[in-house]
Formats: sequence, structure tokens, C-alpha cells
Amino acid sequence: MSQKHIISALVENHSGVLARVSTLISGRGFNIDSLAVGETHDPTVSRMTIVMVGDDRVCEQMIKQLNKLVDVIKVEDFRGQDIIDRELMIAKVQASAETRSDIMQIVNTFRAKIVDVTGESLTVEVTGNESKIDAILELLDPFGLQEVVRTGMVAMSRGRALKTPKKKPIPMSGVQSGKAKKGTAKAGGKKVKN
Amino acid sequence: MSQKHIISALVENHSGVLARVSTLISGRGFNIDSLAVGETHDPTVSRMTIVMVGDDRVCEQMIKQLNKLVDVIKVEDFRGQDIIDRELMIAKVQASAETRSDIMQIVNTFRAKIVDVTGESLTVEVTGNESKIDAILELLDPFGLQEVVRTGMVAMSRGRALKTPKKKPIPMSGVQSGKAKKGTAKAGGKKVKN
Repeated sequence: MSQKHIISALVENHSGVLARVSTLISGRGFNIDSLAVGETHDPTVSRMTIVMVGDDRVCEQMIKQLNKLVDVIKVEDFRGQDIIDRELMIAKVQASAETRSDIMQIVNTFRAKIVDVTGESLTVEVTGNESKIDAILELLDPFGLQEVVRTGMVAMSRGRALKTPKKKPIPMSGVQSGKAKKGTAKAGGKKVKN
Repeated sequence: MSQKHIISALVENHSGVLARVSTLISGRGFNIDSLAVGETHDPTVSRMTIVMVGDDRVCEQMIKQLNKLVDVIKVEDFRGQDIIDRELMIAKVQASAETRSDIMQIVNTFRAKIVDVTGESLTVEVTGNESKIDAILELLDPFGLQEVVRTGMVAMSRGRALKTPKKKPIPMSGVQSGKAKKGTAKAGGKKVKN
């Protein structure tokens, strides 16, 4: 039976890791709903969140194969776990003087934000789980969606932390992610490569 | 001179597109800061946002190569344009009875949200542009970051819409993205594959 799996992978921030992971997945014919990859607080480590549909056995097999990749530090399937899952969407909606207030009402109901206004459109930013995003999209659709961009889901388990089994000690100067990202080599952080 | 480029790509929702795009990029040795891929309101089209650092000439060359891929519908470099750029981050921070209120103060300042609490940790959700996310991460870092997941940036130009030069007419029944995603084939929308 096909079910939705949310997979979190900690990977080394090396050039080509994303290509290797996505090639492995598509090569096995798995279907991906979304993928988001960004830096963690450790600039040498990225975290990917992959949403895919497949049966448990097939998914387990893919996780095993992902774990075999040299640059993959840890992979976890969140299925059955209590998680926080969020997605960000920006949508540009056609809006006239007549429809603007109707759109604003939807925006308020979903605690979304208007981030841009033109004479013919409103741009809306909204954060939430997948079903919330799907619901607001469905309500905005009749007004005319001009552009939609979604980040794809990111997720984290509630309570305990997904530990990073470090292969080397973390240079403490490089852990201040904000600074390290800007400072690159000087701050002890590697340049970010995927 | 290396500069940050934000590239938006509309791609067909076919199996292997993400693998082809990321292989092209890493094969050319380009450095990716982040990548986010999600569905648009048209379930047959995905939108990727790629943040990369490189000089203008190199980046232009990569966009040309991306445009040559069969499954790529349109690629745009947002550099120099007025855009809305947003990212979503979830961070799990160590928190004791003593530090909890200090963390809450940072959370309020950044209009972030507490989405989970345990005896030893707080989980924070925040949305904003890259510099805002970097700033809050830097402030939370001294408390002890246990886990961080970022979606990577998504962006949209202000004002005018990035048109989809459709190769075929859009089946109107399939445009109701929320429904179509759930309904898959029945709703006229293809199953989402990357």
C-alpha cells in the first residue's frame, strides 16, 4: 500500500551530494513529492527533507541505499512519529478592487500575510502544514493564481533531537551558523556546496 | 567577481528532472547554497528555486544549459530585480527554566513562533529572508542548537508574474491545485514526480 513518507537526511555539504541523492532516488523510480535542502547550524552539514510516496518496504530499501552513500550522515523516516511539519508558500493572486476584500478575508482566516500589492494582484505568504497550504490554494484559485512557489515540506520530530553522529569534532568557531556562512573560510566554515 | 544569484526554474513534473538539473549543476562545478522544489498551482509543473554563488558570466552559461534540458520550461535569474524572498526554518534549542524567558524574548522580537516545548528544549519556527534567519540563528546559538532545518530560499518578483509558456493548454479541471494533488489522475493532474 502506498503511503506518504517524510524522510530527513543529514548530509555532508560537499559538491554533488544533491545530485547523487536525487539520481539514486530517480534511478530507482521513486516518486518525490517535494525536496528541500538547506544548511544546518553546522556549516559542514546540510539537511534534506524528502517527501515521497511508496510502500514501507520500498521506502526502507531506499533509506538503506541512501545510508550507503559516503556523504550521507544519517537518514530517518518520520512515518508514525509525532512531528512538526511546515511548508512556506508565496502565491500571486489576481485581484481587482471588487475581489480584494474577499482575498484579504481568506488571508486573515489562514493567518497568512500580504507581502506585495499591485493594481491587479496581491502576493500572499503563508506557512503551515501541507493540508493548510493546499486549503488556502484551493480558496485562492477561483480568483486566478498567477504564480505559486512552495518550499516543500521540512519536518522535525517533537521532543528528542535527531543527533548528528559527527565524523570529526565540530570546530566551535564554525558553529555560529549566521556568521560562519558569511565569513566562509575565515570563520572556519566550509563554503556551502551541494 | 562572485555574486549571489537566485534562480527560479519552472520544470515539468516528470521523474528524474531534479536529478538531471542537480547533476548538470554539480557537473559544471557550480556551488549551490540552497535548493527548494515544490509543486505549483498547475500539478504538471514544479518550481525550483536555486541559490548559487558565481560570477555573472558563469551563471548565465548555467542558465543557458538549464534551458536546453527538455523538462525545463523556463529559467530566470532574479539578480538585480525587486523580489520577495523568504525562507522557513525550524530550530530546536536547549532551554532550561532559567534560559526559557531569554529565548522567548528573541522569539518575540523576530515574530517567530514556539511550536514545541519539552523540559529541556524549545522548538522555534521562523519565516523571513536569509539575513533574518541568519540573525535569529546567531542569537539562539549560545543557548545550544540541537537541530536546525531550513527550507532554502523561495523567491518571486514583485509586480508582474513569471509566465509559464505552456506547451499544451492547461486542463482547467487540473488547476485546482489542492484538490488535484489529492485526486491525482482522476482530477486530470499527473502524479507528482521529480
